[in-house]
Amino acid sequence: MRISVDAMGGDHGPGVVVDGAAWAASEFGIQVTLVGNRRIIEEMGGSHLASELIDVHHCEEAVDMDESPLKAVRQKKEASIRKAFDLARTGEADAVVSAGNSGATLVAGVLTLGRLKGAERPGIASILPGRHGPVVLIDVGGSVDCRPAHLLQFGVMAQAFAASCLDIPSPRVGLLSIGEEVGKGNEQVRHAYPLFERSTLNFVGNVEGRDIFAGDVDVIVCDGFVGNVALKLSEGMASAMTRMLKSALNKTLLGRMGAILAERNFKDFKKSLEYEEYGGAPLLGINGVGIVCHGGSSARAIKNAIALAASYVENGVLEKMASQLNTVEVKKATA
Amino acid sequence: MRISVDAMGGDHGPGVVVDGAAWAASEFGIQVTLVGNRRIIEEMGGSHLASELIDVHHCEEAVDMDESPLKAVRQKKEASIRKAFDLARTGEADAVVSAGNSGATLVAGVLTLGRLKGAERPGIASILPGRHGPVVLIDVGGSVDCRPAHLLQFGVMAQAFAASCLDIPSPRVGLLSIGEEVGKGNEQVRHAYPLFERSTLNFVGNVEGRDIFAGDVDVIVCDGFVGNVALKLSEGMASAMTRMLKSALNKTLLGRMGAILAERNFKDFKKSLEYEEYGGAPLLGINGVGIVCHGGSSARAIKNAIALAASYVENGVLEKMASQLNTVEVKKATA
Repeated sequence: MRISVDAMGGDHGPGVVVDGAAWAASEFGIQVTLVGNRRIIEEMGGSHLASELIDVHHCEEAVDMDESPLKAVRQKKEASIRKAFDLARTGEADAVVSAGNSGATLVAGVLTLGRLKGAERPGIASILPGRHGPVVLIDVGGSVDCRPAHLLQFGVMAQAFAASCLDIPSPRVGLLSIGEEVGKGNEQVRHAYPLFERSTLNFVGNVEGRDIFAGDVDVIVCDGFVGNVALKLSEGMASAMTRMLKSALNKTLLGRMGAILAERNFKDFKKSLEYEEYGGAPLLGINGVGIVCHGGSSARAIKNAIALAASYVENGVLEKMASQLNTVEVKKATA
Repeated sequence: MRISVDAMGGDHGPGVVVDGAAWAASEFGIQVTLVGNRRIIEEMGGSHLASELIDVHHCEEAVDMDESPLKAVRQKKEASIRKAFDLARTGEADAVVSAGNSGATLVAGVLTLGRLKGAERPGIASILPGRHGPVVLIDVGGSVDCRPAHLLQFGVMAQAFAASCLDIPSPRVGLLSIGEEVGKGNEQVRHAYPLFERSTLNFVGNVEGRDIFAGDVDVIVCDGFVGNVALKLSEGMASAMTRMLKSALNKTLLGRMGAILAERNFKDFKKSLEYEEYGGAPLLGINGVGIVCHGGSSARAIKNAIALAASYVENGVLEKMASQLNTVEVKKATA
């Protein structure tokens, strides 16, 4: 098992990525190829790089976090994210992990590896903390203005992923809508509903925004526009609430004393919000394995994303997706 | 000033609504007509009903919280929500407040009062707790599959509302999208962008899900599908986070002690999440004033929603909206 990691991506710079990669290598025995500027990686990596599980694939360029994805990937032929996917294309790596510009990761993945047969559009599946375990929200920004069949394809892929990599035997799949009854929602969702109903998915019907955290559904399917708004909203809200809690506690002496006593507990609480357990979001619909990490990923998140990529490969998820995308039901919905 | 209040709506039953109405009457001197079953209202209202500011308009029927809005409003001609809007239509009331089935409130408002000239679709404007004050999110479920011009109309109406009722002199208006740059988003938003740019609104461009709580924008415009998902997500997340915090604190003795010391502060924190200050969401785009309250509204929320309705009327917001909807720029975008 070899994972190629874009070492130049992430808000915290290559150091954190290299640390996470070294951690994954030593904890799981996974071989990692760090893709990026060798000089910088060696400076950051130090003794980590002595491990025989880790090697460096040098390239000159990198896509910055704020660059336009399509333009940057097209122009920078030597960009680390392109090279990381090139290694997957040529078989030198089994999967790609990146904490860089997520749009560029998506574009590079699609351009380099192509689409998975039966998947018309790429989708990013975010793994969120549900009440009783992880909940997969797909798509959080891969494709906007989806047709109903695209949503079905997202559901099929995310279900295969959740069953294999998240240990959920028969994932319950819901359609994100505004009201649980059949016929509720916008045109896209109303047309997608019967496609899901006729599929072999364990379809539980429409779910609402609040159900993401309620624990009654394992995979939630939506258009990439809606999912991206939802994801960024939940991130913004988590930090807003942490801030509000802090300010409420600081208002009185008793509050400040309570906060000191419960310091450990508040740290646990904050950690549970960050949810680094899975480290990244799989990029589904490409003909290969790619994990998109948050720009602000810690070394622990990177390590876990590498483990997730390895589990994706080991479980043959790509083959399962391909076979399920090419069943009669799904093909009929797509036609 | 007389506000008609649907006394039969709300998860907590008529008692809470009657309490809130009585509170508004005594605190602000607003005249309130409670619309609903007289026997039940009198049972709940007790001594409140002695006030000369409060009267009861009897009707036999009510729309339940889980009924299909359109069907229920059409079939139940004597439903309290219809009667409440009838009083507004005939001039016996200046505005309507309801904590009942919000879909039915929307339908009854549109059917009874008609649309405001220049507003093609109704929108519900939710008032959320931003970092430095209220943020208006429109639409949170009034209209789905909006055309770009509908979004502009929402922006124009919400801007007039925020300026008049929320004391924001020149509200900054943003379009909810997935990326701040021009050209980011789905087709709807990409086409709406130039309409906003050419308008006289104080348009700040695209904003993202996280910006709802960041404090850099006062009015956020989106399709009712996206807004409703966002609203329900934020509600679900607030309760999930409160639950997670509680469980983190309960894990250790120090945590439990800290929680006891800071009990007052936690209550303040929880209260700041509920945000009852404005009590309800104005229903914009109808030819009259309607405030939709959360089904779970407390008496305090009902009281504040009645005050908001009164401020809406006193400030002549409806006339301001109508004149701004009928400017050359907006009409051109609509054509």
